[in-house]
Amino acid sequence: MPLSEVKGFTEEELKRYISADPDLRSKVPGDSASWTVKEVGDGNINFVFIVEGEGGKGMVVKQALPYVRCIGESWPLTEERAMFETTALVDEHAMCPDHVPEVYKFDKKCSAIFMEYLAPPNIILRYGLIDGVVYRHLADAVSTFMATTLFKSSLLNLPSDEYRKKVSFYSDNSPMCELTEQVIFTDPYGDAFHNRHNSPHLDAEVAELRRDAGAKIAISELKHKFCTHAQALLHGDLHTGSVMVTDTTVSVIDPEFAFYGPMGFDLGAFLSNILLAFFASDGHEARPGDRDEHRAWLQSCVRDVWNQFQNKFIRLWNDKAEGSSAFPDLLFGEAAQDGAATKQLCQTTFLRQVFEDTLGFAGAKMVRRIVGVAHVQDMDRIEDEKRRAECERRALLFGKRLLIGRAAFQNIEEVVSEAAALRDGK
Amino acid sequence: MPLSEVKGFTEEELKRYISADPDLRSKVPGDSASWTVKEVGDGNINFVFIVEGEGGKGMVVKQALPYVRCIGESWPLTEERAMFETTALVDEHAMCPDHVPEVYKFDKKCSAIFMEYLAPPNIILRYGLIDGVVYRHLADAVSTFMATTLFKSSLLNLPSDEYRKKVSFYSDNSPMCELTEQVIFTDPYGDAFHNRHNSPHLDAEVAELRRDAGAKIAISELKHKFCTHAQALLHGDLHTGSVMVTDTTVSVIDPEFAFYGPMGFDLGAFLSNILLAFFASDGHEARPGDRDEHRAWLQSCVRDVWNQFQNKFIRLWNDKAEGSSAFPDLLFGEAAQDGAATKQLCQTTFLRQVFEDTLGFAGAKMVRRIVGVAHVQDMDRIEDEKRRAECERRALLFGKRLLIGRAAFQNIEEVVSEAAALRDGK
Ligand SMILES: Nc1ncnc2c1ncn2[C@@H]1O[C@H](COP(=O)(O)OP(=O)(O)O)[C@@H](O)[C@H]1O
Ligand SMILES: Nc1ncnc2c1ncn2[C@@H]1O[C@H](COP(=O)(O)OP(=O)(O)O)[C@@H](O)[C@H]1O
Ligand SMILES: [Mg+2]
Ligand SMILES: [Mg+2]
Ligand SMILES: [Mg+2]
Ligand SMILES: [Mg+2]
Ligand SMILES: [Mg+2]
Repeated sequence: MPLSEVKGFTEEELKRYISADPDLRSKVPGDSASWTVKEVGDGNINFVFIVEGEGGKGMVVKQALPYVRCIGESWPLTEERAMFETTALVDEHAMCPDHVPEVYKFDKKCSAIFMEYLAPPNIILRYGLIDGVVYRHLADAVSTFMATTLFKSSLLNLPSDEYRKKVSFYSDNSPMCELTEQVIFTDPYGDAFHNRHNSPHLDAEVAELRRDAGAKIAISELKHKFCTHAQALLHGDLHTGSVMVTDTTVSVIDPEFAFYGPMGFDLGAFLSNILLAFFASDGHEARPGDRDEHRAWLQSCVRDVWNQFQNKFIRLWNDKAEGSSAFPDLLFGEAAQDGAATKQLCQTTFLRQVFEDTLGFAGAKMVRRIVGVAHVQDMDRIEDEKRRAECERRALLFGKRLLIGRAAFQNIEEVVSEAAALRDGK
Repeated sequence: MPLSEVKGFTEEELKRYISADPDLRSKVPGDSASWTVKEVGDGNINFVFIVEGEGGKGMVVKQALPYVRCIGESWPLTEERAMFETTALVDEHAMCPDHVPEVYKFDKKCSAIFMEYLAPPNIILRYGLIDGVVYRHLADAVSTFMATTLFKSSLLNLPSDEYRKKVSFYSDNSPMCELTEQVIFTDPYGDAFHNRHNSPHLDAEVAELRRDAGAKIAISELKHKFCTHAQALLHGDLHTGSVMVTDTTVSVIDPEFAFYGPMGFDLGAFLSNILLAFFASDGHEARPGDRDEHRAWLQSCVRDVWNQFQNKFIRLWNDKAEGSSAFPDLLFGEAAQDGAATKQLCQTTFLRQVFEDTLGFAGAKMVRRIVGVAHVQDMDRIEDEKRRAECERRALLFGKRLLIGRAAFQNIEEVVSEAAALRDGK
């Protein structure tokens, strides 16, 4: 009973497939005739089906077709991404079970992932942010997800042979990395075909960006780092559309871009999307000031995500009972002179570098969302073009500032207050 | 007619094997009964047979047994290294044919590489240096080898998908990387079983090294970089025992440690061995001053290798007709504003970082040759223990200086003159 391999499943195919697999069958209550199947993929790339049985319980089936969904067969993309997404979900779930859905099954032949259904009231974080919802538990959860997955998959935790096996495995997710290279690190800084921006309002700023040697130097350094610095298993696409939230839970989905890269890439992805929400918020106000509280929370979210990430990361590092390949007991253990104090100095240097990388990648991701191929709903939903342009202009300038000036920021507080000052027109 | 798989070939086996393979057979002139087979492996790890036919022509057969030769079966090591050595020889030969022997055949079953024989007058560079020979053509050749292999295998040249395939492939040479991690980046800085040093003469210096927080911090940063920074295909063991020379030629052999790592690792390996020869030279003088000319040449060799490497590397970069994944034409090509000037700024930053890495790795490699498991003949052949200790002490101090102070050197000239000053007791 194979599923259609190239055209996306039909409702009937899916029901039959699930019914025939006892393990999958047990996840969807009731008679299969009463199940509902909805295609809900609002992402750009894949098809996502929700199969619901009695009581709204069921599962999610995500299928990768050999092209980019929102563009069509003219932009081919390897179906193998579904295998990497599955492996990454399983790896992330093992490291951080509270914040990653469980995978039930992967069908390689039709590139389909059968996984835990994050049922309503779960919504995509980005839409909550656009509506001005405050999620007080967000920073804690997201910082836990990042500290845990980035630490545990890194050489700070894994023996170097296991680490290299993983690097090797995820290196083969190359087509997804190539897409990132193109849409984040290349196209926005030149006259690329797929680019778009709010024209003519931002024409001057965009022209200036594409003349800016500092921006080109910075983006090239970051691209090189992205490609060559295999620091940890990255989610690879950690924007606010890859996070689902309720009032009490936070889950991270959609790691199809997973690979070994610099930690700051995930951190920067998430923070840049919070900053984009911050700069977009003026566009969503009925009256000036309506979103003051929301903005204040977004600012604290930036601050808390970084600070909590840092604290949790160091705690994981210190809690590791035996030494790692990177910090062996022979040099840093209890028997070594000043071992602990020396390790602390290493930690400070290490996290300072991650901080700079984070700001740089955050900047790159802000820039590309204003002038590249894929924009964010936070901005796009601002109906008034001029008002939107003003929000976008600030986001673009701040992105450029982070990108080029990443080494100049002393701490996250300076980032938050500079963003606020820019928004205030200072 | 299989070759012995675990005990090393016998003379007869080798002759029969080569006779039976028409392609191999054609490399060794004369009747096989008249051939001579000598085992000449003076390296620490493998067996090397020279098969000579009429007129001294023939081939070299290098065989990897599943343990470290100089220690025995108690230190197991994967035979797969021969496969990686073969692939690296083939890759390097393709990039830089003038300085890498040709591979004729690889026999996986018995982990044997059949390759071009670098016949006499070829000798191992290290022995020439110990004898005080000056090789005026050395810096040009070695800088060509490094500039070419490091540039061409990097993301500055390869499309990112090809680059990632190579990273993935060489990641599996992990046991060899683990050996490097242990003997270069870990053991020398703690009380490890296999360590040895010229005791009691250097006891104080060694104790001081193992108490030195700055050294531990530096070596840990470099170890992390070694493991995670997949910049280019490294030879991985580029000391003066991996280079064969005549008066006019230079060949690089023995890349069994090949993998993708930071460029500075190869550069540092070579320069550290020239510096070790420099500090050892006093120990080889019958009368003070005997080696003045040789020392002056060693100094110019350090200077020339770096400077020529840098110039050749940038020339390769500039000569690349189309843009690379790392520096796409869209941003840096002729149509892009200030493209060339901007690229030049990137090159300066890039090479500055390679320079610092080079000094750091050079320092690490000097230190480990004085206090770790594997020493160098340059020092070991100094018979008088005290005289040797003085040479070793200077090398150790200078190694530490490079390791910890790598960021403080403005240029290679400062390195050369500081080494000279230290030797002069300043
Ligand atoms: N496990 C899940 N539970 C509930 N909804 C999901 C789940 N996975 C995906 N979705 C829904 O499908 C949408 C697209 O999924 P996503 O994995 O982001 O696909 P894409 O790779 O195409 O972006 C999500 O925005 C979300 O609404
Ligand atoms: N292609 C060759 N031509 C001539 N001699 C060689 C060749 N390859 C190796 N040798 C000799 O064998 C010795 C050991 O070879 P090497 O590859 O360095 O082995 P190991 O990995 O054990 O260090 C070299 O020092 C050199 O004397
Ligand atoms: Mg998505
Ligand atoms: Mg692989
Ligand atoms: Mg996706
Ligand atoms: Mg050797
Ligand atoms: Mg060797």
